Amino acid sequence: MIRPLVHQLHAYVPGEQPKIKGLIKLNTNENPYPPSPRVLRVVKAAVDGRLRLYPNPTAQLLREKLAKLHKCKPENIIVGNGSDEVLALAVRAFVEPAVGQASRLSPSKKEKLATGKMPALRKSDSLVQYFHPSYSLYPVLADIHGAARNAVPLNPNFTLPSVAELKKGQVWDFHAALTFVTTPNAPSGCGYATAELEKLCRAMSGVVVLDEAYVDFARENAMKLALKYPHVLVARTFSKAYSLCFQRVGYFVGHPELIAALDKIRDSYNVNGLGQIAAVATLEDLKYYRANFRKIVATREELSRALTLLGFRVLPSQTNFILAKPPGGTLTAKDWLQKLREKKILVRWFNYPEVKDYLRITIGTPAEARALVKAAKTILSS
Amino acid sequence: MIRPLVHQLHAYVPGEQPKIKGLIKLNTNENPYPPSPRVLRVVKAAVDGRLRLYPNPTAQLLREKLAKLHKCKPENIIVGNGSDEVLALAVRAFVEPAVGQASRLSPSKKEKLATGKMPALRKSDSLVQYFHPSYSLYPVLADIHGAARNAVPLNPNFTLPSVAELKKGQVWDFHAALTFVTTPNAPSGCGYATAELEKLCRAMSGVVVLDEAYVDFARENAMKLALKYPHVLVARTFSKAYSLCFQRVGYFVGHPELIAALDKIRDSYNVNGLGQIAAVATLEDLKYYRANFRKIVATREELSRALTLLGFRVLPSQTNFILAKPPGGTLTAKDWLQKLREKKILVRWFNYPEVKDYLRITIGTPAEARALVKAAKTILSS
Repeated sequence: MIRPLVHQLHAYVPGEQPKIKGLIKLNTNENPYPPSPRVLRVVKAAVDGRLRLYPNPTAQLLREKLAKLHKCKPENIIVGNGSDEVLALAVRAFVEPAVGQASRLSPSKKEKLATGKMPALRKSDSLVQYFHPSYSLYPVLADIHGAARNAVPLNPNFTLPSVAELKKGQVWDFHAALTFVTTPNAPSGCGYATAELEKLCRAMSGVVVLDEAYVDFARENAMKLALKYPHVLVARTFSKAYSLCFQRVGYFVGHPELIAALDKIRDSYNVNGLGQIAAVATLEDLKYYRANFRKIVATREELSRALTLLGFRVLPSQTNFILAKPPGGTLTAKDWLQKLREKKILVRWFNYPEVKDYLRITIGTPAEARALVKAAKTILSS
Repeated sequence: MIRPLVHQLHAYVPGEQPKIKGLIKLNTNENPYPPSPRVLRVVKAAVDGRLRLYPNPTAQLLREKLAKLHKCKPENIIVGNGSDEVLALAVRAFVEPAVGQASRLSPSKKEKLATGKMPALRKSDSLVQYFHPSYSLYPVLADIHGAARNAVPLNPNFTLPSVAELKKGQVWDFHAALTFVTTPNAPSGCGYATAELEKLCRAMSGVVVLDEAYVDFARENAMKLALKYPHVLVARTFSKAYSLCFQRVGYFVGHPELIAALDKIRDSYNVNGLGQIAAVATLEDLKYYRANFRKIVATREELSRALTLLGFRVLPSQTNFILAKPPGGTLTAKDWLQKLREKKILVRWFNYPEVKDYLRITIGTPAEARALVKAAKTILSS
């Protein structure tokens, strides 16, 4: 009864939800600061009899506010149940499945294929492409859809390969149906120059999604590319920078034709009502959030300096986390994960070659950063 | 850049969101009563700094509470962003796409097909099946997925055809990959006996979804079938009976293997946090909601009698709406829609043959029902 494609997928493993009291949670890139008092007030005030009614199916007011912010039209925007939803919609709208159905056809279709009356699928039409390492969701989305994946390595220092380098490497597909670029990158934290991203976009014939989940902590953003090129979408989220993980609101900005295609395949009421209200109120209180960005960036720089002094190799970050290699010694990065956990500090460690010597550490409050540095000192001296 | 399959879909048209003041809204089957005071209190109290954190990715607490309610295990339950999401997941997990990829294969695959080295797709594997009329979302979901659809007519009086009748009719596919049954039915409002549904389920080899969106207003439910048969899922929602449309919470109950397959393809954080909290609080306050069901059923019976006295033909309803044919005269049902709207009462009219002579009227408060009857009298006497 279950499709072979789905049967073969690996079961989803939810992220860790520690229940330990007093734990400092620096593992999932959440914002250490709460939503603004105004946002909390507005959402609280909306919790009344209206919950019985359907929310606005197109997130109309939110899209109007976002259009004003990004100097475009509501038709340039689709809102999702978190940016994860719009990323998944992009795979379904722009990429042809390659497996599943591909292996099973009716006799009449077989005949048409054999006699050349049907055009063959080009490999690129089924391709989801992304750099490695980047957001671990992309391969999952490709697998769910039965698409092919092309994970192309970043440069060893986590910078973006140039178009010339990609051409020379012969692995990158410039006609891939869909290419995801996490910018700034996760888990490296490295930022990419808009000029560099523009060159890459110009070299591509399929859809390019610039996934800017962390861009509010960066020096520049590439939003203008989504409004300049008909094949470029920029993804944003209210989760990280705007302290609204709980309410699931993310969005794409891009050409109205791409947006309209995505709109056709989403659930009718995909964005919950209180999430829409919270996001609208957020946009009316950006001053509060921008002050938080500055605080987080300051804490990031301070923590980076302190860890560097302790012998860590900290990559320059444009996000609300850092990727840091612990000082050479007898302890591996995985050991550090465990030792920090014993001291009630939870960070993230990824078990794949490019980053297995690093810890990914979310930027918390200054007090949390100090606690981390103190714990690191204790571990180093023991 | 857009898949031909998606390109051919019709654009989604959102339901009407009237802004007219004082309008009596009886068009979208929302509950006229607000969530319980307790639910509102609990949700309000949760609007704080926690919004910055991710919600529980598996809706664990909610699934535990639901398992208790339905006398099963959390593994029997998947929660969605409204029941629309779990319905869409079912199509993607159990039905092979028939178009799109089906028409385009690589030369090597062509060769394998031509030489018989690949098994052909059976028509049933790509089939989404449902009775007509029923929930209008099913064909939309089939089209989005590139699945084939089989809409089989209900009996002329909107009752369910028996297995013998379905066999005789030769249109029903007993091997369809996925069959949706809206029970009680929308838009007819008619209830189906569980014994009858069980016979149908036993005759099917694919997955059967019993969509019980309105079941709390009915005399019986078929939940036991989801726990008895490995191919039967029951869909429920917090929207209608539990006054939580705004917060998007629905779920499936069924065999752990089907649930696990759906779980693999959903978004990781598909159910927003305040929605989870609202649903959990709802389950702790069922007395309040059951009193509402009784009120709505009483209003439904009273309204049905009053409209029957005015010459309407009202179908017996097991839901929170009625399907009613206005008295014969010069006015069509579509005219009635318009005349009622002029009197600030919004009902629903569907433009397809089986029901085009009917109005679908949501059961509101007793005062709203009286206003409707009064308006109908005025229209009849003018």
